[in-house]
Amino acid sequence: MTGGPAFPATLERDWCLQADGEDPLGVLRERVALPDGVIYLDGNSLGPLPVGVPARLDQVVHEQWQQGLIRSWNTAGWMGLPHRVGDRIAALVGAAPGQILVADSTTVNLHKLLLGALRLTGERQVILTETENFHTDRYAAAGIAELADAELRTVAREALPQALDGSVGVLLLTHVDFRTGEMHDMRAVTARAHAAGVLVLWDLSHSIGAVPVDLDGCAVDLAVGCTYKYLNAGPGAPAFLYVAARHQANIDPPLHGWLGHRQPFAFEAEYAPAPGIGRLLAGSPPVIGIAVLDAALDAFNGVDMTELRNRSVELTDFFLHLVETRCGGQDLGVVTPRAAGARGSQVCLTHPHAYAVVQALIERGVIGDFREPNICRFGIAPLYVSRTEIWDAVEHLRDILEGGAHHHPRYAVRAAVT
Amino acid sequence: MTGGPAFPATLERDWCLQADGEDPLGVLRERVALPDGVIYLDGNSLGPLPVGVPARLDQVVHEQWQQGLIRSWNTAGWMGLPHRVGDRIAALVGAAPGQILVADSTTVNLHKLLLGALRLTGERQVILTETENFHTDRYAAAGIAELADAELRTVAREALPQALDGSVGVLLLTHVDFRTGEMHDMRAVTARAHAAGVLVLWDLSHSIGAVPVDLDGCAVDLAVGCTYKYLNAGPGAPAFLYVAARHQANIDPPLHGWLGHRQPFAFEAEYAPAPGIGRLLAGSPPVIGIAVLDAALDAFNGVDMTELRNRSVELTDFFLHLVETRCGGQDLGVVTPRAAGARGSQVCLTHPHAYAVVQALIERGVIGDFREPNICRFGIAPLYVSRTEIWDAVEHLRDILEGGAHHHPRYAVRAAVT
Repeated sequence: MTGGPAFPATLERDWCLQADGEDPLGVLRERVALPDGVIYLDGNSLGPLPVGVPARLDQVVHEQWQQGLIRSWNTAGWMGLPHRVGDRIAALVGAAPGQILVADSTTVNLHKLLLGALRLTGERQVILTETENFHTDRYAAAGIAELADAELRTVAREALPQALDGSVGVLLLTHVDFRTGEMHDMRAVTARAHAAGVLVLWDLSHSIGAVPVDLDGCAVDLAVGCTYKYLNAGPGAPAFLYVAARHQANIDPPLHGWLGHRQPFAFEAEYAPAPGIGRLLAGSPPVIGIAVLDAALDAFNGVDMTELRNRSVELTDFFLHLVETRCGGQDLGVVTPRAAGARGSQVCLTHPHAYAVVQALIERGVIGDFREPNICRFGIAPLYVSRTEIWDAVEHLRDILEGGAHHHPRYAVRAAVT
Repeated sequence: MTGGPAFPATLERDWCLQADGEDPLGVLRERVALPDGVIYLDGNSLGPLPVGVPARLDQVVHEQWQQGLIRSWNTAGWMGLPHRVGDRIAALVGAAPGQILVADSTTVNLHKLLLGALRLTGERQVILTETENFHTDRYAAAGIAELADAELRTVAREALPQALDGSVGVLLLTHVDFRTGEMHDMRAVTARAHAAGVLVLWDLSHSIGAVPVDLDGCAVDLAVGCTYKYLNAGPGAPAFLYVAARHQANIDPPLHGWLGHRQPFAFEAEYAPAPGIGRLLAGSPPVIGIAVLDAALDAFNGVDMTELRNRSVELTDFFLHLVETRCGGQDLGVVTPRAAGARGSQVCLTHPHAYAVVQALIERGVIGDFREPNICRFGIAPLYVSRTEIWDAVEHLRDILEGGAHHHPRYAVRAAVT
C-alpha cells in the first residue's frame, strides 16, 4: 500500500466493530435505508434509498401534484428545480452557483456539451478521449464526430499527454474509471490540456459523492455526471451538466426546446437562448425525479468531502489489505491502483471465474457486480459502508474461493443484465 | 355547431346533473384523484394524479429500490420498462407492439427522430412545418436544420398542401394545435405527404389520451408525444417516440448511448445499434418516472378511445353551446373549430383581457390557462370532466365578465409562469 493508513498486524472482526463504533462518520449510514441481510458494495452502480426520499415523494405527489396541480409550477417552484438542485450539486464539486443544471441523462448531456464545445474550438475539430473511457462517453462522442464532421481520436491513457496537440479541440475524460477505479489527476490534466489550448469535459459519474472534486479551482470547462450512483437518487435519476460561467454566453448546442428559451412563455417564433446555464435546458424538467434527487442530497448535508474521502481511502485500503493478507493463492488480481491518490472509491479484482464469484457472493448477500471480461467490482461508498461489512465480504470471498462454491453449475449461464 | 349532439332549448344545471348521472363513462372520473373545490380544465397542460400512482410509487421505492437495490434491473424488469410501457401506449394510438419506446423528453425525441429522418430522405434535406406549430417543435427543427445543414421551411397551415413538393424530406406537424385546439386530419395529411414522397413525423402531445389516433392505420412514419397531459403521468414525465417497423432497420440518429447498443453489457468498443426500436434508447431509463406512467395508464384500462372521443366531442360542444347562449355580448371570441372533426379536446376563447379573466377564474377554483396573446384555454379531458363542471365553469365565466371582476388591479401584473 502507498499512502494509506496502517492496520494492526493481526486483525480480527472485533477490531472492525470497534473502529466502526469510534468512527465519527459512522452515523452517516443512518441517512440511507439499507435492507437487512445485505452488504451493499454496488452503490457505484445504484445507490441505496436515502431515508428522506419517501416523505419528499409524498409531498410532491399529494401536496404539489394532486392538490396544487398546474399551479405548482409556480407555487411549488417546480420550474426552478433544475437550477436549485443544480446549485446543491455544485456545492459538492467545488462549483459556484449558476453553473450546474439538472437535466436529461448523462448521454444526452454529453451530446449537448460536445456539440456545443466543438463550436467553441474553431478549426480544432477533434475530440480526444482514452480507450478505456466508459462506452456511453465513447459512443456519444463518436455520434457527435459523425454529426459535426469532426474526428474522435481515442488513445491509451499513457499516450494522452503527447496527444494533446494543436489539432485537438476537446478532451473528454471520465474522472474515475468505471471498471478499474483509476482516478485522473483532474487539476494536472486540465492544466496540461489548457496549456495546449484544449477544452476539457469531465464525466463525474463515478466520482461525485465519493471523492472531492474542485471544478472551479481546476478551471474545468465542462462536466457531466449521473446522480444514481454515489448520490443515491434512484434508478435512472436525472443527470447534470456543468458549464463554467466564462463559457455560458457562447455555448449554444442546437438541441433547442422551449424551456431553454430566454422567454419560454412569450412563445417567440425564433429561438433565442436564455442568458445563463438555463440555455442548456430543452424539455420540461422531470419534477418527480429531481425532487427525489433533492431529497437524496440531504444525506450529504454538513458532510465534509475531504473527511469523506479520507474514510473512502481507509476503507478501500482496508479491503485491499484484507484481500492480500487473507485471500492469497486464489488467482485474485488487483486492478485498482494501490496508490490511494490514483484511486476512486472502488476495489476491482480480477479472477478467471469472476462472473461466478460475483454471483456466489450475491447469493450470500454481498452485492458487488461483474464487469467484462474478468472483473469483480466492489463499490465502497464512504457514506455508509463499514469496516465490519468489508471484513465480512472478504471472508465470504475467501470462503467461496477456498470451498469452490463458485464452480457450481448454476453460475455457468449468465443473466442478461448483471 | 356542426355535427355535435343537440342540447335542450332551455338548459339548467339539473339537466347536467342528470346527464352526468346517466353517463356510462362517468365512473372513469374515479380513476383520478381530483382535489375538492376545483374544476380542472387544464389537464391538457398537466393531468391530475391517477389513483393507482401512490401505491405503485411505494412498490418501486420500497420493494424494488430499497429492498431489491441493483438486482431490480433484472428481478423487477426495470430494463424492459421503456419497451413494456411503450407497448401500452401503442395500444392507445393504434400501433402494433415494438414500435413505441418511452424515453427522454419530447424535445430530445424530436431531436433524435428529425436527425434520423433526414438521413433517410437522400437529397431532400428540407423539414416542412407550419407557422403555428408548438415552439419546441419549431426550435428543435431549427436546431436540426442548423446541425444537419438542412432547411426548415415554415408555412401557414393552408399552404401546407402546395408546399409538399419534391424538395421536402420530412413533414413535422402537431396533431392538435396547443393554442387553438384545431386538429389535423392525420390520415389525409399523411397520405398527401406520402404521395409527394415525404416522411411524416407527428407530435401527439395534445391528442394522445383524448382523441383516437391510428398510427399504423394511417401509415405514419414517426411520432413523438408527451405523457403528462391527457395521460396524467405527472410533471415532466418521460416522453415517448414511435418509429414504424419498416423504418427501424434504417434509422440511426447519432445520439448514441450504451443502452441503444445491441449488447449493452458486452461493452464493445464500437457502437452498433440494437435491431429494433431499442436503438433509440440512449441513457438509463428513468425508472421511477416510467413506473408512474405505467400506473397512470391503468386509468385507460378497458376504455374505448372512440367512446371517449364521443364524450369529448359532446363536452366541448356543450361548452361552446353554453358560451354562445349564456355569455353573449362579452367580447368573447371562439378560436376552437366549431366542426367537431376538426377539434381536439379543448375549447379556446379569446378576450381582450384574457389573462385577467383566467386569473379570476382560477381564484374561483376554475383552472384553465392563458396563452399569448389573448387566449383563455380550457382543456376538456374526457376521462374526468363532467357536464356539471362545464356548466359551473361557464357560469363563473359569465359572472366574472358581467360583474367586471377581471378588472381588479391585482390581475394587472402577470406571474412569470402561467
